[in-house]
Formats: sequence, C-alpha cells, structure tokens
Amino acid sequence: MSLLENIRGPHDVKALDGEDLTDLAEEIRHFLVHAVARTGGHLGPNLGVVELTIALHRAFDSPADRILWDTGHQSYVHKLLTGRQDFSKLRGKGGLSGYPSREESEHDVIENSHASTVLGWADGLAKANQVLGRWNRHVVAVIGDGALTGGMAWEALNNIAAAKDRQLIIVVNDNARSYAPTIGGLADHLATLRTTDGYERALSWGKDAVLRVPVLGRPLYESLHGAKKGFKDTFAPQGMFEDLGLKYLGPIDGHDIAAVESALRRAKRFHGPVLVHCRTQKGRGYRPALEDEADRFHTVGVMNPLTCEPLSPSTGMSWTSVFGDEMLRIGAERPDVVAITAAMLHPVGLTKFAEAYPDRVWDVGIAEQHGAVSAAGLATGGLHPVFAVYATFLNRAFDQVLMDVALHRCGVTFVLDRAGVTGTDGPSHNGMWDMSILQVVPGLRIAAPRDAGQLRAQLREAVAVEDAPTVVRFPKETVGRDIPAVGRVGGMDVLARPDGADEGVNDGEGDGADVLFVAVGAMAEVGLDVAGLLRDRGTTCTVVDPRWVKPVDEALPGLAARHRLVAVAEDNSRTGGVGWAVSQALRDAGVDLPVRTFGIPEQFLAHAKRAEVLADLGLTPAEIAGRISEALARAEETAVKEESTA
Amino acid sequence: MSLLENIRGPHDVKALDGEDLTDLAEEIRHFLVHAVARTGGHLGPNLGVVELTIALHRAFDSPADRILWDTGHQSYVHKLLTGRQDFSKLRGKGGLSGYPSREESEHDVIENSHASTVLGWADGLAKANQVLGRWNRHVVAVIGDGALTGGMAWEALNNIAAAKDRQLIIVVNDNARSYAPTIGGLADHLATLRTTDGYERALSWGKDAVLRVPVLGRPLYESLHGAKKGFKDTFAPQGMFEDLGLKYLGPIDGHDIAAVESALRRAKRFHGPVLVHCRTQKGRGYRPALEDEADRFHTVGVMNPLTCEPLSPSTGMSWTSVFGDEMLRIGAERPDVVAITAAMLHPVGLTKFAEAYPDRVWDVGIAEQHGAVSAAGLATGGLHPVFAVYATFLNRAFDQVLMDVALHRCGVTFVLDRAGVTGTDGPSHNGMWDMSILQVVPGLRIAAPRDAGQLRAQLREAVAVEDAPTVVRFPKETVGRDIPAVGRVGGMDVLARPDGADEGVNDGEGDGADVLFVAVGAMAEVGLDVAGLLRDRGTTCTVVDPRWVKPVDEALPGLAARHRLVAVAEDNSRTGGVGWAVSQALRDAGVDLPVRTFGIPEQFLAHAKRAEVLADLGLTPAEIAGRISEALARAEETAVKEESTA
Repeated sequence: MSLLENIRGPHDVKALDGEDLTDLAEEIRHFLVHAVARTGGHLGPNLGVVELTIALHRAFDSPADRILWDTGHQSYVHKLLTGRQDFSKLRGKGGLSGYPSREESEHDVIENSHASTVLGWADGLAKANQVLGRWNRHVVAVIGDGALTGGMAWEALNNIAAAKDRQLIIVVNDNARSYAPTIGGLADHLATLRTTDGYERALSWGKDAVLRVPVLGRPLYESLHGAKKGFKDTFAPQGMFEDLGLKYLGPIDGHDIAAVESALRRAKRFHGPVLVHCRTQKGRGYRPALEDEADRFHTVGVMNPLTCEPLSPSTGMSWTSVFGDEMLRIGAERPDVVAITAAMLHPVGLTKFAEAYPDRVWDVGIAEQHGAVSAAGLATGGLHPVFAVYATFLNRAFDQVLMDVALHRCGVTFVLDRAGVTGTDGPSHNGMWDMSILQVVPGLRIAAPRDAGQLRAQLREAVAVEDAPTVVRFPKETVGRDIPAVGRVGGMDVLARPDGADEGVNDGEGDGADVLFVAVGAMAEVGLDVAGLLRDRGTTCTVVDPRWVKPVDEALPGLAARHRLVAVAEDNSRTGGVGWAVSQALRDAGVDLPVRTFGIPEQFLAHAKRAEVLADLGLTPAEIAGRISEALARAEETAVKEESTA
Repeated sequence: MSLLENIRGPHDVKALDGEDLTDLAEEIRHFLVHAVARTGGHLGPNLGVVELTIALHRAFDSPADRILWDTGHQSYVHKLLTGRQDFSKLRGKGGLSGYPSREESEHDVIENSHASTVLGWADGLAKANQVLGRWNRHVVAVIGDGALTGGMAWEALNNIAAAKDRQLIIVVNDNARSYAPTIGGLADHLATLRTTDGYERALSWGKDAVLRVPVLGRPLYESLHGAKKGFKDTFAPQGMFEDLGLKYLGPIDGHDIAAVESALRRAKRFHGPVLVHCRTQKGRGYRPALEDEADRFHTVGVMNPLTCEPLSPSTGMSWTSVFGDEMLRIGAERPDVVAITAAMLHPVGLTKFAEAYPDRVWDVGIAEQHGAVSAAGLATGGLHPVFAVYATFLNRAFDQVLMDVALHRCGVTFVLDRAGVTGTDGPSHNGMWDMSILQVVPGLRIAAPRDAGQLRAQLREAVAVEDAPTVVRFPKETVGRDIPAVGRVGGMDVLARPDGADEGVNDGEGDGADVLFVAVGAMAEVGLDVAGLLRDRGTTCTVVDPRWVKPVDEALPGLAARHRLVAVAEDNSRTGGVGWAVSQALRDAGVDLPVRTFGIPEQFLAHAKRAEVLADLGLTPAEIAGRISEALARAEETAVKEESTA
C-alpha cells in the first residue's frame, strides 16, 4: 500500500521512521513527475524540496508553527503532506492552486508568488509572536538562493539580525539557480560555503590545535576568538551571515532527511535568528530535468513524463519569440542597444541576443529595482538598454521607473511580457496593472502592439526614443494573425470602417459612425468581432488601434466627436487604464460623449485558463457588444427625454 | 582673501595644498551654517562631508569621472566646489536646487533624492564605460550607512561584486545615522569595522606572529590564508564586503583630507570594485547639531545660526503632530496596534508612541518594501500595524502593498505624510502619485481627511478595518481650521449647500444645483472658496468632502445626477486620481454628465514653495472657478445647438 495516500496531515509524517521516510520521498517524486506531466506546472523546484519538506513537517508543528515558502511554486510537496493530494486540476479552474492558498489550507500563509518576500513575512510573524507572548511558536522561512539576490531579502535579513532574542529560522534552499544559475557576489559566497564541509569538526580541531601551540597558543586563540566573527570563520567562511548577526548552520545535504531534520531541531532550540543552509538539487531524481542546462523543467506544460514530448504542442509563434528575434536583429544594427533581465534570460526571450552579444546583456538577479536603476545609469552612459521583464514584476520597480528613469529623461525601453491576464499562475502573475500605474509617469510612452508585425515595428520605434522611457507590452501565449490597417488617423491605425470597407488610405477624421471602438493591443481581434456584431444590429462602428496608448493620440478627440459613443477595451485593470486616459483626453478637449470602458475589474483573479478568465470577466465580443448596445439605447432614451422636455 | 570665492571648479581645488585645504574646509563649514540658516535646507549631512567632498574632487576628474551622490541632499559642498556659490535662493523658486541638478551643472548626475539608488546608477555607468571602452573613466558612488539598509543597495552590491574586472569605487559615508541611528545587523557590522583601527598593521603583525610559531606556524598560516576570506579577517572583520567580492579599504577618518584623498587614489588604481569606508560625523563643526540627539539639524528652517531660534516660527499645529497625538491615544486603547517607520521615527510623528510603547514600534531602516511586507506578517500574526511614511516613499512598496498586504486581505494602515505638493524639496519629494497608483489595489480604502478633526476620526476608522489595507493621507505643513459639515449624503460630508445655508441634518440627495464640487482632503477650503466665487456669478454649487475617496461613495452618482456638471479637485496627479475614479463611477451608473478634474498635471515639479507651485498649476479658487464657468457655458451652448437641431 502506498505510504503517500495514508498521509492525511503532518502528524502522519511524524509517525513514520527511517526506511519509510525514504520510501515516502520516492513515492512523492514519482507522484510529482506523473501528476505535473498531466496538468503542467512547476516540476523542477518541487523535485528539489521533497526531503526538505518532509523534514520540516517532522521538526515543526504546522499550523501553530508557521512554515513559509518563498515563491510558493515550491509548495507542491507541502500540499501533499497537508491533505491535498488531488492534483488532477492543478492550476486549472476549480483545482488546486499552483501556489499556497489560505482558502485551501490552514497550513498555507503566503499566496504571493513574487520572490524574496518570505523573510519580511517571517520577520512580521515573529514580531507578532513576541508582542503577543507566544514564546513556543516558531516561524520557519524557506528561501532559495536566487531569491536572496532580491533587495527585500536583504532588508529583512538586516531586520531579523537586529533582534538577537527573537526566534526565527531561515532555511536557505540552495540549488545555485533561479531560472538560470544565480549570479552575483552572493552566489559566489554561497558557492564557497557549499564546498566547505565538516565545519563543526574543523572548529573543534582548530581550537585544540591553536591552544596546543606553545607560548603563543592561548593569546593567539584569545585574539582570534575575541574578534567579532571569531575563530571558526577562517575554517568555514560563513562570515557574511554571521557578520550580520545570524547563527549559521550548514551546509547540510538537503536530500538527507535525517540530517535536515536534525539541523532544524537544533535551530529550533536556539533562542535567536538562525540560518540553516541546505544544498539541494533542482529536478532531483528526474533525469530530463537534471540534464537540461536551460532549466526548461522549472515549469512544464502537459507532457509525456517519459519522453518529455509535449502532448499539446503549441501552434504558432509566441509573442516572446517575436520579440527575441527582433532584438537579435536590432542588436546587429545598433551596437549601443544592450539588454537586461532579472534572472529570466530564457523566459523573456533574450537567449539569442545573449548568445550573439554576451557582453551586452546582464542578468541582474531577482532584482527588478536594480534592473531599472542600472538601466538609467546605462542610458546616461550612452547606451540604450532594453529591460525585458514580466509585466507583473515591473510593479517592483515603479519608483525606479518614475524617479530614476523618467525624471532623468533616460532612453530606456521596458519590454513587458505576460501583460494582461496570464491565467493559470493565479492572482500574482497577471500583468494587469502596468498600463495603470505607468500612466502617471511623466514623459513615458506605452506601446501595446496588436500583432507580430506591430510588435516588431513598435519595438523599433521604442528603441529610437532617446530622451524618455518607453514601454512595449504584450500578452502571454501565441501571437495571432497580422491584422492590417485600413486607414490611419493621427498615429492610430483604423482597423475597421463604419461601412465595413477594408480598403483605404490615410483619410483624416473619417466619416463618423455610432460607435468609436478603441481596441488596445491584442484586443484588436475582439474589436473587429464587436464591430461585426454591432453591424448585424444596424449599429455602425469604427475600430481603431491607438498603437501608442500613452500619451493618448492627439487626433482621438476629433475622431471621437464624429461618433455617439466611445468604447475602450484593454487587457488591463479598468481602473486607471487606457479607458480612463481616453476619457480624460475627451473631457480636456471638451468632447463630453458617453464613454464605456472594458477591462479587468478591480479584483484579484483566481487561477484558470486565460480564455476562461476573460470569459468570466465578460471580456468577450458578445458581452461587450451587448453592453455597448445598452449604453446606446440609454443615450437615445435620454436624448428623447430631453427633447420632449425642451 | 577668501579661498572659497576663488574656487571656480574642481581644478581650483586641485591647485591648493596642505594648510589651504584645511582653511578651505573651515570656510565652507562657515558658509554652510550661515547660508543654510538664511534659507533653510539640509545642514547636518553637508557639514559631515566637507573634507570628503574636497578629497573626491582632488582625486578624480569630474565630469569625465562621475561623482555620484546618494540622497543628493549631501551635495551642497559639491555645488560650492563646482561653481555654484550663490545660495541666496537655495530651494526657492529660481534658486539652486537642494539636490544635484543636471540643469545646474555638468558635474551633477542623479537628481533623485530617494535613498539607496546610487550603487545601481554606478553599476550602469560603469557597465557603459566597459561596453564603450572608456577604460580611463572612473565612477565613484558616495552612499551613507543608512542607505545601505535599503534593498536596492544590496541588489547593486551583488551585481557590482560579480564583475571583478569592472572598475567602480564605493565610498561609504558612515556617520551611523540616517535620521535616527541606523539600525539592523548591517549597522552592527559597520560599528565593528569602525572600531577596528590599524588594520594594515595588524595584518602584517599577524602574519609574522603566526609564521614565527614553531612547527605549526607555516601550516596554520597556510590554512588560515587558504580559506577564502583569509587570515586578515580575524583582525579586521570587514568580512561581509570581501565575502561578496569587494576590495575593502578602511576605516578612514573622513575628516582627514589627506587620508581620504590617499585612500581614494589607492582605490582608483585598483582594477575592480573597491569599497572605501569613511567614518564621518554628521553636523561636524557645528555644536548645536552635534549635541542634538533627535537630529533636528538634518534639515533646518530659516533660523538664527547662533541661537538656532527659528526666524519664522510655524503657527499652528502640523498634520504630523495631530497624527502623532492620536496614535498615542489609540495605542493606549488598543494593545494590538503597533507602528512601523522606515528610518524616520521623528519626522513621521511616532516619537511619542515610541516612548510610550517601545516594544510596539519598529524602525526597519530605509526599507519601505520591508515595512510593508513585515506589516502583512504582523497583521497575519494578529496585530494591527500602522506604517507611517512619506507619501513619495510608499511608491517604493507598491508591489508589496498590492501583493502582500491587499492580496492577503491584511488589516494594515498606511499613514502617508507629506502627500500632495511639498514644494521646496523638488520633484522627488512631492507625494503626488499615491492616490493614483493605489487606486488599482483591490479592496484598499483611502481616506483624505480635510482637517485635524477628520484626521483623528478617519485614523480611527482606518485602524478599525481588519480585513483590508487602509490609507490615510495628508499634506505637509500646518493643518488649517476644522471645517464643519452642514449635511451628510451617504458617507460624504456636505460642506456647502447651493443656497449657502450652513445648517442642516442628513438630507439624502439634497436639492441639486448647477455644480457638484467634490473636494478631496485639504482641497476643502479651496472648494468653499470656489463655491463662493461661483455664487457671486449666479451659479449654484454643492460642495462635498467624500472623506473616503476609494472606493467612490455609492451615493455620489445619485447626488451628481441632480447637478449639471461635476468638478473634482485633489492635491494629487490628475492622471489616475480621484477625479478619474469619480468619472468612472458616474459612467458605470449611466450618469453621463460633464466632469472636470483639477489636480497636478502629468509633469515633474521644480522646487518652490508649496503655495507658489499650486498657484503656478492653476490650483487656486479663482482659476478653478473660471474653468468651471467656461465648462458650464460650453455645455449650455451644446445644449442650445442640439435643441435647435432637434
């Protein structure tokens, strides 16, 4: 009988011993490979923490003790051990979340999957324990070496270390990678620690050896020992963490359950902050993951677990690859164009650029703030940086975009991948706020290309701007067909005319119609469908793609004035987005027309497929066309009423 | 003859020697005290860097070499040495900026005065030098020990240390304080370094001493030396920085020009990243500053430089002190209420709370991200944290407010001081974006109190919310008179009725009028003045204070529908602010009235007094009333036109 299926909660894990624990780990690993192959999800990180998670649930008593996961995609094993073994709809609508979820379990705390937050959470929880006198409660934070490169981790370490009497346990899950190998001075330091075994033995040997030295022995020992970092550092250079005031235990083999459990129990007995350094292997036990340099098994799609062949191969090109190919071409033409990634070189499509121009690309770590600020420095130094990053992660660098890049009028291009609804990764991965918060940044320009051709063109327009930040944003998944313009008004492409004619040249303000539909980026296709539905009902509609959505095109108010209603659709939070900006531009021009905005309502979105989410939000052509018709009818009614009163 | 007045640029500083340099430093110090006393400005930090700045301009060739200042308020001496000695209008309209300014001088690079950015800038500039082959150009970044507690500094250090062949010099200006003494593990580490003199001597002594040990000497030395951090660490525990891969020089007496210059020249010859650790004294040479524990000489107002008496004593209470007093009272009633500050305990008004409840307040360092994340942990742990912070600095923690606090529905109250136009500190200190970017945060509620009474009441309402983040924001300077409500509609206070009557009870939707004026927070007084001006022209006006501006009060659309035009005024960026939100709420309710929004246009604001800035932006009663009248006339015209067409 399977051990795993009899685990109902942490107490069942505690009841097992020696051999059974190793067997349980094997069962979990087998389960993970087959379950995740069926649904897609984070595979590599979870294979790396099987033993660590078992040890954590043996050494601590969740939920009274808080076990916290940074970048919660490493919580699958934790789910299995806390009563959640139905992975059949993992990351799907109504299924288990791919991250911890308070709704799912009292054992989950942090739902957010942005990295480097866990130490801050732990500091807060430990402070609360202290204030409320809960002395017997423990807080354990698991953080990857990659996440330690994030500034938040540093801010938290500095605070945690300040309270020598506050109990808190940091487990560094050190696999030497985030997506790519972790970079920077810290990574080098961790590498040194990793290769330094037998620290405890060296310590006692060292002390005895020095004390045995005639005459100088005792004074030398005292002198060595009296210095703050003390004697042992010379043998096990864990110095950095102890310099900050953290007790250091390690390095521990993170795949040895007994060793990890024993270290955790020692840490638990220590009255103050402790760091337990565990070496683990991402993808442990699954050869395809271990053999893949590019770490493509970090997240996998639905696949055959033996052959690793995808079972639903993607059709067509991704937005990411269109960007990557064009960057390669731009790189060849413009030696001043350089690239930045925050620990996601492959996922953001910079692989080819990096291969061609290795000296012109920098992985800054999970450090979006540094990505943006160093870009300001690069631009001031005479280069044009392109910082490619997931839209949701640029939120981390809002202040730096505003204060460092925009205030200094630096020519920096931000390429926001995974903008809009991303779906299966849940609330914290949707890139649905960028066009709102970036609206306030003076001088910044935002492009939302509607197709591959426009992405190429607008990327080039963006890198040509030398005195202001530019943003190019596009969604996840595959890019659709190229959608031709049938005309041009100002800088905007006309995609459909009221009469349905699809030929034409630059025609100024056009002929006017009932509805002006402003389709932002990938909403172009929706816009065309809406126009078709409206036409069927006898309502005429002009569809434009503004191309650059910030600032609002100067020609828009004039064009709008030749319509009865303006609709704006965007794959972004409706609050503060393009719809609001268009509405303001019309008011400023004295065009007080009814405006209707279609976007994501002000809420966090549960995980489901992108199309399912959009449908649930009513962002479908039928729903939008219906609401436009209602608004037109209401306007008609009001007009009739006013007429009869007049 | 004065040495200072003959300094036209860095070359004149290089031409001086020994005695003259000491005299120059004295002259500068004298100049600073008297000049800053006349205008107000940052005094303490600049007195601390006189010798350091002289040494920098001797060792390097600005602007070919880039001398970068973190938190640029320490750049006054730099200004004096680079041809800017007219301090008569410092921080005033048309005068010198209180920060570096590219418009003022080619010697200035970073205008931003948010802390911890300088290492990121330096990394970018050094990378640009490398890519463009400018091998003989140096980049020198000056950063305070306080700013090193910020996560951005860590992200940058990690990157800087990664490139062993990229030349970059970090000068740590270590005075052991930001506003308050710097906190955290790093501060403790720096303290250890500070007290470790004679490192070079200890090193050579240590080596010799160990080698002289019989038998074990050589192997012990090799073993000590072979470890990564090496032998010298036990004598001078600079470990942390060298662990990261940075060459460390120090500690240096930052007030010894020759010593600093010599260290900088050594650093300049080193081919790789170097950290020069200078000990300085904030307020050096000015006894009142040195004797003030609370560091009130960090920034001073206009004062008598001898007696330190303010020459224009402030009349009335500040918003900050109203908050501070109420927090003290709330603290007494609610043992679960705790407070957080990011290195600004005194300036944000938490001094009294900290004295009364020292175990319930935390200074997290210049670490707004950690302030927000640890608040989420505190709330999850059962407390109600109040994070008091300048509005402009919360921009740093946008992602954490969204992802850690709001997503987890944590009851955390953010108190935003210095919201709106702050004036003299220039573009980066204005708190003009908070009500825009926070608009998108699901579930978050924003209060903008109009007076002291409302601040007290709304702070209490905020800390009573346990399942969502709340924000209370108020401006700089003194709070005006309490403005009574003459009625209530929904949750909104009616401040003025169309008929001018100032008595009344809750009267539902009111009687309707020409204009509904929505006055946000401190714009209440402006709203009443506008109503008066409009009444003189025969236009009736209702003035409401929405109190909670997010979400928009449900009663607002109904009330608006009884008016012909809605005006919204706010001390915030017009883009994305309350005006936009009100406009959307009206559209959603099908109330397609003309709306006019008055706020700060999309631009960075140059330094000047708050009132001057507001007047320049047209945020005065006369200007606003005029524009409302124009809009009404236009609406009238359109109506007439439509009637005649009908």
